[in-house]
Amino acid sequence: MNALGRHLLLELKDCNQELINDVEFLKNLLCETAEHIGATVVNQAFHKFSPQGVSAVVVIAESHICIHTWPEYNYAAADIFTCGNSIDPTDAIDLLVERLEAKESSFIELKRGLLQGNKVICGIK
Amino acid sequence: MNALGRHLLLELKDCNQELINDVEFLKNLLCETAEHIGATVVNQAFHKFSPQGVSAVVVIAESHICIHTWPEYNYAAADIFTCGNSIDPTDAIDLLVERLEAKESSFIELKRGLLQGNKVICGIK
Repeated sequence: MNALGRHLLLELKDCNQELINDVEFLKNLLCETAEHIGATVVNQAFHKFSPQGVSAVVVIAESHICIHTWPEYNYAAADIFTCGNSIDPTDAIDLLVERLEAKESSFIELKRGLLQGNKVICGIK
Repeated sequence: MNALGRHLLLELKDCNQELINDVEFLKNLLCETAEHIGATVVNQAFHKFSPQGVSAVVVIAESHICIHTWPEYNYAAADIFTCGNSIDPTDAIDLLVERLEAKESSFIELKRGLLQGNKVICGIK
C-alpha cells in the first residue's frame, strides 16, 4: 500500500545534556539533517524554554523535521515527516543518534495519507 | 505508564480543497487550535507550495501543532504534540475536523518519552 507521507518518530535516550539544551546547536543539526537526507529547508522555528529544553522545527519542501528536548531526562523526541519517493527519512537516524550522543534509541515509522489507487483512505499504518 | 509527551496524529480526509490550500487560513487555524486547547504559541513557520499544498507549524510552550495538506487529494495530516498534564491534545480534534470540513477523520495517540519511575525508557507506546 502506498502513502503520501512517511512519518518517522525517533526516541533518543541518554543524550548529551548540554547539546540538547543548546538551541543554536539543534538549529544547525536540523538543517544538517535536512541536507543529509536530501531535503530542502524552506522555513524554521525554534524556542528555548526556561529553565531548560528546546523545541526546534524546520519546514522542508518535503514536510518537516522537528525535535523536542528534555535535558533534565537526557531525552529528545525527533520526528522526520517526508513526502515523495526521493527521500528516505530513516537516513536521518544515525546522524541524529551520533550528533546527540544518544546511548539508546528506538523509532517507529508510520504511513500518513494511505492511498488505495489514487484515493486517500482513512487511517495510519 | 507515564510519559513526557502525548503525540496525537490526525488524518483528515475529504476536506474543503480551497481551505486546505489557504496558508493564511491554516496559520490562523493552528493559532486558534492552540488557544482552544489552552496552549501558548511561541513561534511559527509556514510554507505554501507550488502549485498547491501548505505546511504549517506552530511551536507551542507545550511542544508543537502542525499540518501538511494535499489539496489535490482533499487530504490533510495534522499532529498535536503536547507535554505536561494541563493540556489534552484530543481537545483539538473536533475543531480541526469542523474548520477543515473533513467528512472523514481518524487519529492515533502515541506516548513519547515513556517514564518508568523518573527515568525515560526507550520506545513509543
